[in-house]
Amino acid sequence: MASYLKPLLSLLFSIFFFSLASPIDAELQHPLDSLSPAEFTLVQNIVNKSYPTPHHNLTFQYVGLNEPDKPLVLAWLSHPTTKLPPRQALAIIRLNKQTHEIIIDLSKRQVISDEVYEGSGYPLLTNEEQSAAIELPFTYEPFIESIKSRGLNLSDVVCSTFTVGWYGEEKSRRVLKVQCFTKKDSVNIYVRPIEGIAIVVALDEMKIVGYGDRLRATVPKAEGTEYRASVLKPPFGPKLSRVAMVQPDGPGFKINGHMISWANWEFHLAFDVRVGPIVSLASIYDLEKQEFRRVMYRGYTSELFVPYQDPSEDWFFKTFFDCGEFGFGLSAVSLEPLTDCPSNAVFLDGYYAAQDGSPTNISNVFCIFERHAGEIMWRHTESGIPNETYREVRSDVSLVVRMVSTVGNYDYILDWEFKPSGSIKLGVGLTGILEVKAVNQTHTTQIKDDEHGTLVAENSIAVSHDHFLTYYFDLDIDGTANSFVRTGLVTKHVTEPGVPRKSYWTAVTETLKTESNARIRLGREPFDFAIVNPNKKTKPGNPIGYRLIPGSVSSPVMFPDDYPQVRGAFTNYNVWVTPYNKSEKWAGGKYVDQSHGDDTLAVWSQRNRNIENKDIVLWYTLGFHHVPCQEDYPMMPTLSGGFELRPLNFFERSPVLKVLSPPPVPLPNCTRRP
Amino acid sequence: MASYLKPLLSLLFSIFFFSLASPIDAELQHPLDSLSPAEFTLVQNIVNKSYPTPHHNLTFQYVGLNEPDKPLVLAWLSHPTTKLPPRQALAIIRLNKQTHEIIIDLSKRQVISDEVYEGSGYPLLTNEEQSAAIELPFTYEPFIESIKSRGLNLSDVVCSTFTVGWYGEEKSRRVLKVQCFTKKDSVNIYVRPIEGIAIVVALDEMKIVGYGDRLRATVPKAEGTEYRASVLKPPFGPKLSRVAMVQPDGPGFKINGHMISWANWEFHLAFDVRVGPIVSLASIYDLEKQEFRRVMYRGYTSELFVPYQDPSEDWFFKTFFDCGEFGFGLSAVSLEPLTDCPSNAVFLDGYYAAQDGSPTNISNVFCIFERHAGEIMWRHTESGIPNETYREVRSDVSLVVRMVSTVGNYDYILDWEFKPSGSIKLGVGLTGILEVKAVNQTHTTQIKDDEHGTLVAENSIAVSHDHFLTYYFDLDIDGTANSFVRTGLVTKHVTEPGVPRKSYWTAVTETLKTESNARIRLGREPFDFAIVNPNKKTKPGNPIGYRLIPGSVSSPVMFPDDYPQVRGAFTNYNVWVTPYNKSEKWAGGKYVDQSHGDDTLAVWSQRNRNIENKDIVLWYTLGFHHVPCQEDYPMMPTLSGGFELRPLNFFERSPVLKVLSPPPVPLPNCTRRP
Repeated sequence: MASYLKPLLSLLFSIFFFSLASPIDAELQHPLDSLSPAEFTLVQNIVNKSYPTPHHNLTFQYVGLNEPDKPLVLAWLSHPTTKLPPRQALAIIRLNKQTHEIIIDLSKRQVISDEVYEGSGYPLLTNEEQSAAIELPFTYEPFIESIKSRGLNLSDVVCSTFTVGWYGEEKSRRVLKVQCFTKKDSVNIYVRPIEGIAIVVALDEMKIVGYGDRLRATVPKAEGTEYRASVLKPPFGPKLSRVAMVQPDGPGFKINGHMISWANWEFHLAFDVRVGPIVSLASIYDLEKQEFRRVMYRGYTSELFVPYQDPSEDWFFKTFFDCGEFGFGLSAVSLEPLTDCPSNAVFLDGYYAAQDGSPTNISNVFCIFERHAGEIMWRHTESGIPNETYREVRSDVSLVVRMVSTVGNYDYILDWEFKPSGSIKLGVGLTGILEVKAVNQTHTTQIKDDEHGTLVAENSIAVSHDHFLTYYFDLDIDGTANSFVRTGLVTKHVTEPGVPRKSYWTAVTETLKTESNARIRLGREPFDFAIVNPNKKTKPGNPIGYRLIPGSVSSPVMFPDDYPQVRGAFTNYNVWVTPYNKSEKWAGGKYVDQSHGDDTLAVWSQRNRNIENKDIVLWYTLGFHHVPCQEDYPMMPTLSGGFELRPLNFFERSPVLKVLSPPPVPLPNCTRRP
Repeated sequence: MASYLKPLLSLLFSIFFFSLASPIDAELQHPLDSLSPAEFTLVQNIVNKSYPTPHHNLTFQYVGLNEPDKPLVLAWLSHPTTKLPPRQALAIIRLNKQTHEIIIDLSKRQVISDEVYEGSGYPLLTNEEQSAAIELPFTYEPFIESIKSRGLNLSDVVCSTFTVGWYGEEKSRRVLKVQCFTKKDSVNIYVRPIEGIAIVVALDEMKIVGYGDRLRATVPKAEGTEYRASVLKPPFGPKLSRVAMVQPDGPGFKINGHMISWANWEFHLAFDVRVGPIVSLASIYDLEKQEFRRVMYRGYTSELFVPYQDPSEDWFFKTFFDCGEFGFGLSAVSLEPLTDCPSNAVFLDGYYAAQDGSPTNISNVFCIFERHAGEIMWRHTESGIPNETYREVRSDVSLVVRMVSTVGNYDYILDWEFKPSGSIKLGVGLTGILEVKAVNQTHTTQIKDDEHGTLVAENSIAVSHDHFLTYYFDLDIDGTANSFVRTGLVTKHVTEPGVPRKSYWTAVTETLKTESNARIRLGREPFDFAIVNPNKKTKPGNPIGYRLIPGSVSSPVMFPDDYPQVRGAFTNYNVWVTPYNKSEKWAGGKYVDQSHGDDTLAVWSQRNRNIENKDIVLWYTLGFHHVPCQEDYPMMPTLSGGFELRPLNFFERSPVLKVLSPPPVPLPNCTRRP
């Protein structure tokens, strides 16, 4: 046991550091650490000095770590006491209506590359420009008139921003659409839209460049839309009993800078303004081999595509890409102790660059907790041996890393769950508020045409839509050279003489050699998929690997040549595998806002590169078709989905065989059992 | 709030009764209560008196409640203070090589019907006859010789029973196959088979009627097979930190006889020797309507089909039906506090009739606990209203009812999970020990032909197989007259003038009118399925319903005309809907051992009955294809699957909108936070 604990000993005293901000330069510990506040400031200063313009003319749209080349990181990992690889930041700025990609060397404190991006699409939106855009209508006379003519008070109106997508326009300018709601008598603005007003804002000029007041629909009433407990009236219920998780020895995990270690796992956790949590260098300790073995180099939610399915003039463009347009990290919210995360959770902050480049804190952006969900890790009762009975049961515990991103109305709960058995489970919870279209109908019998959603309350159509979350997993299964294999179940005729059974199935495993072989729509045939290391075998000779266990599978239903689907073509398959390429990070491309779909995973994959025995990346899309129902109104109970990455002959035997159940906690004075 | 609590008040003081045995006659509370120990004894006495034969010639194969006709139960429910419907038991006995179906009136204390079953198939096996069968080889000379000739000690040998299936034989006798293992140096017998010896035991005569010693294979060695912590040697790990769930107010659920109430749910829980847990009369309290509304009349795991995929002479017949052959309840094990269920669990016992009819207790056969898994019931952070920020988060709690059934080597963890949002989640965990075939090979390079599984250790092929769990749900969505609807997502061309988008999808819902329409293979097309009450609509006019949300979907891969697949034809579709018929309870038929497949769900469904606006039953099959891996050896880490039944316009709005998060638990003296 001593030898097993040794690698963790150096982390043992670091537990008190977890509430520190990200390390500043002098304390940098890891080449994949997110930029620290000091580094954000450094980037801000260097860039502002390089472009001595009035500040309001230079906006930081994205600032993040320009991660070192993978060989440098791997080399450093072999000798972690040596100097870190050169530390660089990537800043994407708008300056004089142009997009610049700037790479800054943080040690040399200088810009080392500056390229003007001339292609289609625009960078991440900033919070500040969205805030500015939604203020514009309030001084815009036609809008003031539209509100007045509806009998509404301007002081009750709240507006929100909507990306416009791309519909074949040859030229575009950087615009947003703005639509508005009433907050009168309820803070649930999304279910109280003021339908029919179309406002287009040009962002570089920050002015309204298009306006229309096309139609009117009854604004849904406030009654029944409120969700704040402080405002709702009794009766409340159902009543839930209270509980505390008591861990007398404290949490079982350690946080050292951005490295987290727990049970047999260790991994690096970073926060990125675009994708949110990035898990790197996830490795699991092999008790038999007495060493940590790499499972994943880097993993994150690469893109989130949310096309609404209403073709009307005010809705057709609503085909959002939440990571590339709004920033999954930028939209992350501070987690609430005891409700967003259980009482045994520990919280971490995240930082991003504001539009002016200054470091901005999101407190409690991650929580980390041990999940004691009452699951069983493994068990067996043996009663088949006469006069002997055995029972061995191990209760399961897992480690969860959680972030919640609230992109306007929707709240996405993102969980990374690590299990001692070697499984990594990715969980997504969908909650928050529906997007509602105001209509004049109050009952389904009045609906003659397709209204593209569900009448969830009077005058309220909750519009149908999809959610496709595309994950990036640069798995490195015990090394970087990996292959992607498909195991099919093939029905065979029985040929054994004298055996009356007619058929059986056999598992036939095939290595998929190129990108085109590895585009998979799941669910049609009984196939299993895995990433294996073809260069390493277990003692009995099985290739070492990790399996993908999908959850419920959904695929796009729009035409593949429709503009939103071209931009979201990375969802055309549930699974893709590409050779590792540092620049292929975001499934929807680097510049997603108004993108033309010419820089997506689907385009990269067309090169049909070799993926056998290479450093490869697995892309997996978790999808949900959402036809809303009344239970989703006025606030959606969480709908959960997920999938699992699970060891497949990675270990010689069960990695949890020698787990001991934790001893019971004696708590004589603080609990009562019936 | 008072009015909401009123229906629960009468249950409030019943919490101390949960450790009581099932009620005896005088205490009967509910027409769906399992037979009490006194009732089992009564059945035993009445049947034995009716057939005055030597006891060993009359065996009780199944004894359970002969549930009252549904209209009687529903009538009683409307007036629960009236007399219970007549209480009857069903006993299936073997007597003089015949199967009798006997119905006993427990009030009148008499047999009211006795029919000899002349069809194909045999009833549930008893534990006692299986115990007797595995003793026979030890006095059977050819077997003793086979063991000796292998250099093994008879005292190290343990045998086990295997049902033989049916392969087209016109006539059959009631037989079992017996295969043996060595327990030398390890209690993990299933991974140490003594291959090649085939023993056939006739059960009615209880003697060996067939014997063969066909081939030899190296018995896999003991090393690496042990799983008991007390025997394993250090190092142990990974280490997990200890935790206690502290509920200072005690559990939030109440148990009154067999009725369980918690949060907004109430349901009846019974134990059955064949199917294990039966959940009846699940109803949810509607805070707006101020009444309990029925969701399900009765639900349980109807059958579990486990075909192994090795066509060789010693393995081809291994196509088990664990409910109908071995009894999912009969195979249930006593749950271990703190590991099988968390520290806040409450345990219940179950009873069944032994082979001689006497009541037999399984202690702790169920556990019931509130799951605090750190999930979020619903949440929203509102930052879109200038100068205002709101955050409302409700942590999720659910109620879990768990049973574990250990059918020989495999342990099945069966969870029923009730959520305040109205969801019922069905979870299954697969753990325990693999079935291993001994082979002479020690490395995959020595394997020339298909060995039908994975070489998980030297001389050990873990054989590939499937698990198909077929659930029975007599849903009664706010009444008994229900319909089954399919919602398809249909791609449409955009026709709106001036809208440049090309396509969108729309949800088209169709009522499936007959049984043949309602046979569904999931996963091929984007369809959603629901049971609705076409006679009741929400205020906006949506039909009241419950959705089926499948998990990972698997379908059989054997030929449909192969004998095991004919017997397991109820797995040919993932979903079936039938009109309620009291006799159609078990998807594989009443007599599954050696059945011919002439009494399965697939046969009943061929009548193609009308299912529109009828009392209907939903059958859902949850499947797993299991190609084993080394991590499954020598003990399988739990593989989990499941699915969800979720309200679909059942409520006018979210049923958890007015849930308050439970207050925090102050525990100053018994916890330490870092």
